[in-house]
Amino acid sequence: MNVPVSRPVPSTLSEKIARGDLMAAGCPSRDVLKRLTSRWGVLVLIALQSGTRRFGDLRRAIGGVSERMLAQTLQGLELDGMVERKAFRVVPPHVEYSLTPLGREAAGKVCDLADWIEVMLPQIAGHWAGREDGAAADARS
Amino acid sequence: MNVPVSRPVPSTLSEKIARGDLMAAGCPSRDVLKRLTSRWGVLVLIALQSGTRRFGDLRRAIGGVSERMLAQTLQGLELDGMVERKAFRVVPPHVEYSLTPLGREAAGKVCDLADWIEVMLPQIAGHWAGREDGAAADARS
Repeated sequence: MNVPVSRPVPSTLSEKIARGDLMAAGCPSRDVLKRLTSRWGVLVLIALQSGTRRFGDLRRAIGGVSERMLAQTLQGLELDGMVERKAFRVVPPHVEYSLTPLGREAAGKVCDLADWIEVMLPQIAGHWAGREDGAAADARS
Repeated sequence: MNVPVSRPVPSTLSEKIARGDLMAAGCPSRDVLKRLTSRWGVLVLIALQSGTRRFGDLRRAIGGVSERMLAQTLQGLELDGMVERKAFRVVPPHVEYSLTPLGREAAGKVCDLADWIEVMLPQIAGHWAGREDGAAADARS
């Protein structure tokens, strides 16, 4: 027997989204993907997996990241609920960053991929041999 | 007893790399990460997981991708040994793309993350509520 069920009208953004669809051009899941898999996003998630860290610690751990890019990356991850920022009202200022439970889940997936890349790098680099011509260099830039 | 072992001198790039280090600024693993986790890289890997596809098929499956970006993404994944390109000498030209065994491993990791993002999107979007101010919009752009 089919009894019609009265469903509440979705009012918030999260109620409207049942599940994301990365293949759809307008889906906000693409923004999340972008923030989680940006070069600095990945490296911040890896660096925070071992625990709470201060801004300066993070910057030293992640080779080549600028202050501006690190701040922007942390802000994006905070917006998605992946990272928690804790500012202590002391002099000099002390700010700590850590993963939320949601961020720990994401970091697990991201680190799994990152680990695979690091381990497989020799095999992947084997494909580059003898292809260091103009076309190959173009594709990698 | 320490017997000195004579080790062959590494001559190729892949012999020189024992394992990548994503935290190091100059490590080529960062280029691989960039290609695998670029927006289009991720979506191509997902689209190829279900099997061999032609260029036009791929373009239709991945919302919003331009011909140029798709070609460039496929070329990068081919360079890393993730994707195999097969051109048939027929008129009109027929080109097929498929994942290599290495690419299937990478796609497995990437799809695991992509799937998690799609499923968790409502929860992630819940964090955006009430933060649609200027600062939040900046961080997401």
